[in-house]
Amino acid sequence: MSDIRENRYELMRVALGEAAADLAIVNGSVVNVYSGEVEPASVLIKGERIAYVGSDVGKAIGSSTQIIDAKGKTLIPGFIDGHTHIDTIYSISEFLKYAMRGGATTIITETCTLAPPLGYDGVIQFLKSAKNQPIKIFITAPPLVTLSPVTEEHAITLPQLRRLLRRREVLGLGEVYWGDVVNGNQRVLDLIAETVRRGKKAEGHSAGATGAKLQAYVSSGVSSCHEPITAEEVRERVRLGLFVLIREGMVRRELEAIAPIKDDDALLHRLAIATDGIGPEQLISGGYMEFLVQKAINLGFDPVRAVQMVTVNVARHFAIDDDIGGIAPGKYADIAIIPDLKTIKAEYVISNGRVIAQNGQLLIKPRKHRYPQSMFNTIHLDRDFTADDFTIPAEGNQVKVRLIEQVTNLVTREAFIDMPVSEGQLKADVSRDIIKVAAIEKAYRTGKSFTGLIRGLGLKKGAMATTTTWDCGDIIAVGADENDMARAVNRIKELGGGMVLCADGSIAAEIALPVGGTISTEPVGTIAEKFKRIQEAAAGLGAKSPNFELTLATLPTPAIPFLRVCESGLFNLKENRFVDLIVG
Amino acid sequence: MSDIRENRYELMRVALGEAAADLAIVNGSVVNVYSGEVEPASVLIKGERIAYVGSDVGKAIGSSTQIIDAKGKTLIPGFIDGHTHIDTIYSISEFLKYAMRGGATTIITETCTLAPPLGYDGVIQFLKSAKNQPIKIFITAPPLVTLSPVTEEHAITLPQLRRLLRRREVLGLGEVYWGDVVNGNQRVLDLIAETVRRGKKAEGHSAGATGAKLQAYVSSGVSSCHEPITAEEVRERVRLGLFVLIREGMVRRELEAIAPIKDDDALLHRLAIATDGIGPEQLISGGYMEFLVQKAINLGFDPVRAVQMVTVNVARHFAIDDDIGGIAPGKYADIAIIPDLKTIKAEYVISNGRVIAQNGQLLIKPRKHRYPQSMFNTIHLDRDFTADDFTIPAEGNQVKVRLIEQVTNLVTREAFIDMPVSEGQLKADVSRDIIKVAAIEKAYRTGKSFTGLIRGLGLKKGAMATTTTWDCGDIIAVGADENDMARAVNRIKELGGGMVLCADGSIAAEIALPVGGTISTEPVGTIAEKFKRIQEAAAGLGAKSPNFELTLATLPTPAIPFLRVCESGLFNLKENRFVDLIVG
Repeated sequence: MSDIRENRYELMRVALGEAAADLAIVNGSVVNVYSGEVEPASVLIKGERIAYVGSDVGKAIGSSTQIIDAKGKTLIPGFIDGHTHIDTIYSISEFLKYAMRGGATTIITETCTLAPPLGYDGVIQFLKSAKNQPIKIFITAPPLVTLSPVTEEHAITLPQLRRLLRRREVLGLGEVYWGDVVNGNQRVLDLIAETVRRGKKAEGHSAGATGAKLQAYVSSGVSSCHEPITAEEVRERVRLGLFVLIREGMVRRELEAIAPIKDDDALLHRLAIATDGIGPEQLISGGYMEFLVQKAINLGFDPVRAVQMVTVNVARHFAIDDDIGGIAPGKYADIAIIPDLKTIKAEYVISNGRVIAQNGQLLIKPRKHRYPQSMFNTIHLDRDFTADDFTIPAEGNQVKVRLIEQVTNLVTREAFIDMPVSEGQLKADVSRDIIKVAAIEKAYRTGKSFTGLIRGLGLKKGAMATTTTWDCGDIIAVGADENDMARAVNRIKELGGGMVLCADGSIAAEIALPVGGTISTEPVGTIAEKFKRIQEAAAGLGAKSPNFELTLATLPTPAIPFLRVCESGLFNLKENRFVDLIVG
Repeated sequence: MSDIRENRYELMRVALGEAAADLAIVNGSVVNVYSGEVEPASVLIKGERIAYVGSDVGKAIGSSTQIIDAKGKTLIPGFIDGHTHIDTIYSISEFLKYAMRGGATTIITETCTLAPPLGYDGVIQFLKSAKNQPIKIFITAPPLVTLSPVTEEHAITLPQLRRLLRRREVLGLGEVYWGDVVNGNQRVLDLIAETVRRGKKAEGHSAGATGAKLQAYVSSGVSSCHEPITAEEVRERVRLGLFVLIREGMVRRELEAIAPIKDDDALLHRLAIATDGIGPEQLISGGYMEFLVQKAINLGFDPVRAVQMVTVNVARHFAIDDDIGGIAPGKYADIAIIPDLKTIKAEYVISNGRVIAQNGQLLIKPRKHRYPQSMFNTIHLDRDFTADDFTIPAEGNQVKVRLIEQVTNLVTREAFIDMPVSEGQLKADVSRDIIKVAAIEKAYRTGKSFTGLIRGLGLKKGAMATTTTWDCGDIIAVGADENDMARAVNRIKELGGGMVLCADGSIAAEIALPVGGTISTEPVGTIAEKFKRIQEAAAGLGAKSPNFELTLATLPTPAIPFLRVCESGLFNLKENRFVDLIVG
C-alpha cells in the first residue's frame, strides 16, 4: 500500500468518465461478494484502486489505458489468507513468488516464531521485511503464550503492544492459546483487553475447548478460532460470536471434515479458509490460497461462498473491508482473473492496480529484503556441546521416570516407566523406542538447558536438532546417541540456526535458517529439496512422523496436549505446572 | 462503559462456575444473532459483561446473585440506533429517558447540528454530555458539508479530526453529502481518506445518486448510506459494498417502501434500521427503536432478521462487535427481555449489566448534564432587528427574480418570476404565495445576512424564525411581514436560540433552545407540546407543511435539492454555485 496521499478525486473522475483509467478489465463476469451475484461487468482502475464496476466504461478508456480483455473469464477479488505463519522458514520475497502467482493479494500473518528469540525487535524487523511488497502483508502482534520462563520474561509488554497496535499494518493480537487464558495469565489477559479496547482483534486458539471452558475463554475478548476440526465445533464457536477460520495447511487439513457445514448459509458469512502455515512442497506443487478455494469447491461448497470465505469475510472480520475484500469502487484493485468459477487458476493477478502475475509467471518481483546483521546472529551458545551435556544423572539401580509419549505426530502425553540406571545415568533405549530429548536456551544467554526422555518417535539411531521451535527460543534436539545430539547442536551453532540431522557422527541432512534462527535465505525450491532430504533421512533413521521437523518443533508448544518440554524442564499442560523427570 | 480496568478473569470464573454471577436471567429463550437461532438458555452476568450463555448455570448462582426468571420470555440484544441526531432539540438526559425504556442500549449519533455554530468545541461539549450515561453513546465527527462560506471557514480541520478519531467513542466521520464529494471538495475528501486510513468509518449520504455518480461517490471511501427509498436503491448500494441503514424516523419513513427486500437473505446482513432523528411526539407515543423493530416485523420481516438489523449488523459495520451486538460471553450485558418475538415491548432493559428499566419504568436515571455557561451564549447579534433589515432593494418598476420554490416539505427548486418594484424594493405577495426568506449569520459575529423570496410555503401572515438550522450556523426566518420577522429574530436573541412564530407583532408560539442555540433544557413532554403549538400556529397562519419547523431548518442544507439559502445568498446545488436573486 502506498504511503503517499491518496487522490480519491482521480478515482471519481474516472468513474464519471472525465479521466482515463490506467487499467481496464473489460467484458468479464464479476463475482460480487457483497450481494453474492455474478454479473457481466468491466472494471476501471486508477492508480492502486478501483474506480468503477459496470458496463459504461467507454469514456474512461483513453490512449494510455492498459486493457485486459476478460471475455469469457471471471473476475474475483484477490485472496486473503486470514491466518498464517510467514515469519518462519521462507524469506518473504521467496515466499511471495509462490503466493502471488496463485492470486493471493493479502496475507495476515502471525509473528510468533520470530518473537521468542528476538522479542519486540523481531516483530519490527519482520514488519520492515514486509513493507513495500507487491501484495499487502498485515500482522498480528505475538502474545507469546509460552511454557518457558525465559521466553515469558522476554515476551511483549503492554506498552510494546500499544506501540504495535497504533500501526495500520498490525491488525490485532495473534493467537492466544486458550489454556493460559483460562488459567488466568494476567499478562495475556491484559494484552487481550488492550487489543479489544483499541478496536482491534484478539485472535483465538481454542483447540479442543468446549462448553463452559470455551465460554470462559471467549469471555476474555478473543474474536476468532482457526482450530475447529468438526462441523459441530464450528457451529459452537459461531454461536458464541467467534469468527471461524477453517484450516487447510501444513499443520492440519480440516476442510473435508468440516464440509457438512457447506449448506448452512447462516453460518457461512462467519467463516474463512486459511492455511495456518504452508509447507514448501505444497507451495510448489499444490499451490497456496487457490488450492484451498479449489478444494472447497470440489468438496461441494458453492463457488461464490468459497470466494467470500477468502475475501470479504476475512476483510470484515479484521475491519479492513473499506480497503480490500471485494471488487467495488474505492477498494484496492486486488483481482484474480480465472477461467470460470470451477477452475481456480489465475490467468491474471492484479494487486494494487498492477498486473503482478500472468498464467503463473510473475511480472513484478517481490522486493528482496536485506535483513540487518543482527538478525544473523541469534544463536547465543558460549561453547560447543559434547555428549556429556546430554547426560541424565540418576541414583540407584533403577528409577521411575516420567517421559513424553508421542501419541500422534503432534500430540503427546505423559507416561511413567521404570528405567535402569547405568553408570549413574539414564540412557536412551531404542529397543523400547525411548530416546533423549533436550531443550537448550540459546536466545538470551541464560545457559539453561534440560534433557529428558521421549518415547514413540521411532528413531533408531542418530539425532536431530532444530531452531524452528514453537513458542519458545530454545533449540530442541532429540537423539538415540548423545554424540550425534552434540554434533547436531554444534552444527546449528555454525549455521546460525536451522535443522540438522546427524548419524554416526556425520551430518546426514541439514538446512540453514540463519535469519533469526528460523528463516532461510534460499529459494523455496531449494528449501523443499532440503526438507525432503531431512524427512527422508529421518525416515531412514526410523522416524515415524513424515514431518519429523514439525514433530520436534512443536515439543515446547502449549498449544497441543499435553506433556511438553523447554529449557526449564517438563511441563504438564493439564496441571499447568512443571513436573519432575525422575519421580521415584 | 467503564473506564476502569476490566477484569475479564472474573467473567471466566463465573463461566466456569467458580464464582457467583451478579445477575442471572434464567429460563428464557435467547435470540442468537450470530447463528440466527432461538434457543432456551440462561444468561450469567458479572459486572458489566456477559460471562456465560447456556443451560449449566447452577454453580454460578450464589446468595448475592440477582435472579430474573424469564420463563416464557425472549431475550434479545439491546437495540443500537446506527444513525441518528441527538445533538439537537433534547438534552441528552431527557432524551435517554425515552430511549432507554424501550430497549435501546447504544446510540450512534451525528454531531452536525452543534458543530456549525460551535465547531470542534461543540463536539467536545457533546461528548462530555454523553459520558457516563446508563447506555452507550458513540458519535461520528461532523464533516460539515455546508453551503455557507462562514460555516466552511469554521469547519473541522484534519488535525481536529485526528484528535477525535483517537477517542474510542468516535466511530468515524459523519454523513458526507455526496454532491460536495463528487464536486471534489478537497477538505472533505481529505477527511474521508483520513478516517479510512485510521480504520474508522466514513458515513455516507447518497440520496438520489445512481450509476456512475453513485460509484464516483463510493470511490471516495464512504462506507454506508441511510438514504435509499426503494428496494432497488438498497440493492444498488449493497452491491457497491455499502452498508445500508433503512431510515424510519422524523425526516422520512422508508421501511414500508423497502419491505420487498425482506426475503433477500444475501442482502439482509448488510442492512440496518435507524431513525436518522426522531421527533418528540413519536418518542412519547410511538416509541424509539422498539417501534422500528415492531414495524419491520409487522411488515413481514423475519423477527430474528429484524433484531439482527438493529444489533449485530450495526455493531459489525462500526467494528464494535467485540463489545456489543449479541448475547454472548465477553460482550457487554445489553439485553432486552420481551414477551415474544412478535411483541417488541421490553419488560426488562439491561444495560452494562444493570436493569435500567422495567415495564416501561426507568430504574436508573440518566445523568443530568450541566452544560457550561459558554453553551448558553451562542446567539451573537450585536443589535435588534427591524423591518428594514429585511428590505430587498430593487430598481425600476419590475424585475425578474429567482425565488426558492418549495416543492415538497423538504425539496425546493428554482423558479423565475416577474415582480413589481414598490418604493424601490420587492415585497412579499401572499396572493401569489410569495413571502420573504432570510438567513442571518449569528455564530461568528460576521454581521452577514441575506433576504430573498420563497414561494409555496402557504404562510398568509406573520413570520417564523429558527436556530435549528441544518448544516450552517444561521438563523433562518420566513415571513409575510417584515415586522413579524424582526420580532421573531429578536425573540430568538432573547431566548438564546429556539423557534419563534409571530403574527400581528405578537409571539404566537415559541420554544427556547438555549443550549448551543439548538437544545432545550425542558422535558420531552414539554417539548412535544411546544412543537405541537408551533405547528398548529403555523397551520393557522396558512403553513402547508405539517412540520413547518423542519421545512425551515432544511432551507440551507446541501443534502436536499436544489435551490438553497444561507447568509451569503442563494445557492444552486445543481450548478454548485451562488446565484443572483435579481436576474433582470
